[in-house]
Amino acid sequence: MKLKARLLDIQAGGRRITILDNETASFLGVHSSDRVKITYKHQSVIAIVNVAADFPLNYVGLYEEASKRLGLKDEESVEIQPAEPPESMRYVQAKIRGERLRGNEVEMIVRDVVERHLSDIELASFVTSLGIRGLSMDEIEALSRAMVKTGSRLNLHKAPILDKHSVGGIPGDKTTILIVPIVAAAGFVIPKTSSRAVTSAAGTADRVEALCPVSLSIEEMTRVVKKTNGCLAWGGALELAPADDIFIQVEYPLAIDPLLLPSIMSKKKAIGATHLVVDIPTGRGAKVKTIGEAEALSNDFIDLGKRLEIRVQCAVTFGEQPLGCAVGSALEAKEALSTLMGNGPLDLKEKATAIAGMLLEMVGVKNGKKEAEKILDSGKAERKLREIIAAQGGDPKINPEDIAIGDKRAEITADEDGRVLWVNNEDIAKIAREAGSPKEKGAGVLLRAKLADHVKKSETILEIYAERSTKLESAVELANKLKPIGLSGKPEERMIIERIPKPTEPRKTFMLER
Amino acid sequence: MKLKARLLDIQAGGRRITILDNETASFLGVHSSDRVKITYKHQSVIAIVNVAADFPLNYVGLYEEASKRLGLKDEESVEIQPAEPPESMRYVQAKIRGERLRGNEVEMIVRDVVERHLSDIELASFVTSLGIRGLSMDEIEALSRAMVKTGSRLNLHKAPILDKHSVGGIPGDKTTILIVPIVAAAGFVIPKTSSRAVTSAAGTADRVEALCPVSLSIEEMTRVVKKTNGCLAWGGALELAPADDIFIQVEYPLAIDPLLLPSIMSKKKAIGATHLVVDIPTGRGAKVKTIGEAEALSNDFIDLGKRLEIRVQCAVTFGEQPLGCAVGSALEAKEALSTLMGNGPLDLKEKATAIAGMLLEMVGVKNGKKEAEKILDSGKAERKLREIIAAQGGDPKINPEDIAIGDKRAEITADEDGRVLWVNNEDIAKIAREAGSPKEKGAGVLLRAKLADHVKKSETILEIYAERSTKLESAVELANKLKPIGLSGKPEERMIIERIPKPTEPRKTFMLER
Repeated sequence: MKLKARLLDIQAGGRRITILDNETASFLGVHSSDRVKITYKHQSVIAIVNVAADFPLNYVGLYEEASKRLGLKDEESVEIQPAEPPESMRYVQAKIRGERLRGNEVEMIVRDVVERHLSDIELASFVTSLGIRGLSMDEIEALSRAMVKTGSRLNLHKAPILDKHSVGGIPGDKTTILIVPIVAAAGFVIPKTSSRAVTSAAGTADRVEALCPVSLSIEEMTRVVKKTNGCLAWGGALELAPADDIFIQVEYPLAIDPLLLPSIMSKKKAIGATHLVVDIPTGRGAKVKTIGEAEALSNDFIDLGKRLEIRVQCAVTFGEQPLGCAVGSALEAKEALSTLMGNGPLDLKEKATAIAGMLLEMVGVKNGKKEAEKILDSGKAERKLREIIAAQGGDPKINPEDIAIGDKRAEITADEDGRVLWVNNEDIAKIAREAGSPKEKGAGVLLRAKLADHVKKSETILEIYAERSTKLESAVELANKLKPIGLSGKPEERMIIERIPKPTEPRKTFMLER
Repeated sequence: MKLKARLLDIQAGGRRITILDNETASFLGVHSSDRVKITYKHQSVIAIVNVAADFPLNYVGLYEEASKRLGLKDEESVEIQPAEPPESMRYVQAKIRGERLRGNEVEMIVRDVVERHLSDIELASFVTSLGIRGLSMDEIEALSRAMVKTGSRLNLHKAPILDKHSVGGIPGDKTTILIVPIVAAAGFVIPKTSSRAVTSAAGTADRVEALCPVSLSIEEMTRVVKKTNGCLAWGGALELAPADDIFIQVEYPLAIDPLLLPSIMSKKKAIGATHLVVDIPTGRGAKVKTIGEAEALSNDFIDLGKRLEIRVQCAVTFGEQPLGCAVGSALEAKEALSTLMGNGPLDLKEKATAIAGMLLEMVGVKNGKKEAEKILDSGKAERKLREIIAAQGGDPKINPEDIAIGDKRAEITADEDGRVLWVNNEDIAKIAREAGSPKEKGAGVLLRAKLADHVKKSETILEIYAERSTKLESAVELANKLKPIGLSGKPEERMIIERIPKPTEPRKTFMLER
């Protein structure tokens, strides 16, 4: 039927939603959540119906997403027809029932996710089903491939292309800011993309932004990498796996992430990675709690890597306290830069050179860690970072003291003498967020005591920085309530607990005596 | 923070959604799907955030649901604070993990559903989890009770209160229009509520609407029942279980109904039913396919009934073809009225008197079916229906020929001589819907051949009625494609296959010889 368009000058967060009055919907024979095909001048979109009680009769309401796509103006006439649910809904329902999906079925779902043919209700049901029913490795591979197919790709026409990824979970993990320049300075290509914080105190993109711009286009990223071998870009602007951005919108409120593996690996495939180290921080306060869990996850990463033609090694790393001392975008950028300049915490240096070393060894460099240490200690890595900063549009002469830190500051002191028995990762992140991180770049915390340190009563164990005094106050209040540092020897010299697959040792000659 | 209200003069289908610009959301530290508390003059609502890219800064967009609740005007200033997810989300997540929920946890979820504190994403995830994990009978009971608690109730201050329900699935099932007047004429109270069609050709509310108004308030319903002992009201206007109306909005697009039992039984409890017969049409073309399935479902209904203090009996009924000949609102109303006046199809009469008889026996009447037949044959039931029609505001003198049927008519004829081997329920419903049912009351189909009938080549086997010729044409086209009546003895004299629990037979004296 013909209806007049009423353009709503707001967006529906990417969703293609259309509003019909009760009467109009009933005449069309559609209900809320049904689909309609909207046709205007030989162009059509499929939109999902929201039925409203008092919408004008004979009108169809369109959010900007749909009206812009059709190039439609207010009061113009459009043709509306009921449309069937997309075929992919059959496979969503099959997954609800517990069936395993085939590659083409998975691809159809992912295409409809990107095309916005599936509603929030349908997406949430699919993600929940994946969470409960689990995914076979075939399904994980199919999801990864479909997510790559439906996104943009970086084509550097070079090999090898190195990459690293952390599954996350510990605050203060600014390792990437050291690894990228070490690897790039060693002569290897590492086009790194990172995310911003969603629930953490800072993401790598937030940290790097205290040093230089991070919102690069694919073209800008290509130029930076061609010039410097590396980059530190924000992945969000690149549309590498747009399906994943939509899945995350659903996983976030539900606090489940069944799509962890395809989400990570599709983005690695999209930038053309051939060699990848995955950092799995492990420990009581980390995302992955046990070595057993870390090993199982490692094997999945390695298996999926083989299927996608990416060589993967995993580093199971010590994850029972924040890395380094700084937590919060600017504080962390400052600490990373200081470390590259020779003045950083030992654990950060150890972890960065160990992981960089693994990457170097994967592409044939001998004694990778030693090589990485040499590049770091010689100042080559620092110079490389400054090249990257310049190429991304920042000031290559930036010094740690140039990075603005919140001018509101408070200290938390020890209640008693003792040794630090634990540092609660989650609580540290909460306090940094309460202080304003990640939105207020200068906000965060600085740990003055870490695991196994001896502390005297009234000594400062934590500094809190904020840009606004109200935020500082509530962060101090939270710190006093949570007591994130537990008081009652030195792990920072061996950050990596395990390396998977284990480096092959020369096999002893097999002897069989008869 | 203080923001200015921008009122959007549209509804969000009951959802409490608020729109914030990217920047504003980021400053508040909230993402899409997070919650905010909106305060205006000592009143607050919790709303779910949708982040838009170009919404005016320092403004908060409010759909009518939220602005009306706050009594807010455009451009007025409101206080916005981030709000935590409601506690019920913990239990939604527990259900995703496969945990069994306790009564108070279920109640908290249902309250938040009704208060619109849960988003579509959260609701869809909950319903999907129920579908996959299943529900224990304790959870089903808790859901039923919570749905009653959060809705309106009918208080007739009388007992017994009789009711019947069909789980549905076969087209043309107008039994309720006969059972209500039979039971009411026998002197028992039967305050029947019914639904409209969602995916079927007609719901009982649609059918009755061809005879009299059905949108009654609780007060009007009470008045009609006090006057006539019965009513035939539309349940939708009564808010008996508002949680269920919201759940259905999510179950419908997903095509799953894990809440079938609490959905039905909460509404029965809400009208105060003490005795209930549940009709379970069973057969290849029905919703319930096998007698085994029907028995399992019966036992669940009976168990849940005991928990809710409703005596339940189930009738497993023959469901392999439509009931009677008419499918479509007006055609069915006409057939039901004719049957009450002595001229209806045998199977309809048989089923209606059998189920009415079960109800009468449950409240102590002997030979229930015989009694029901007597009430029907004597014209008492017809007079009672006319009383109800008058009380609901219709014309009590209405005759079958007064009911307007679509004036566009087509006949489908037999391709060959033969016996009717099957009638496809689903296809018959599709053809009736294609002809315009349920929206166009005069549209539908009339079966001229049913199971086991002998048919000659070129004889009419199906009539199609429509209000518009385009609809008639596409219905005829569909009928020729689907061929819903398969050609190649008489079941109408024994409609009920099984009765659960089986009527207890007098026990033989127990003998133990030593």
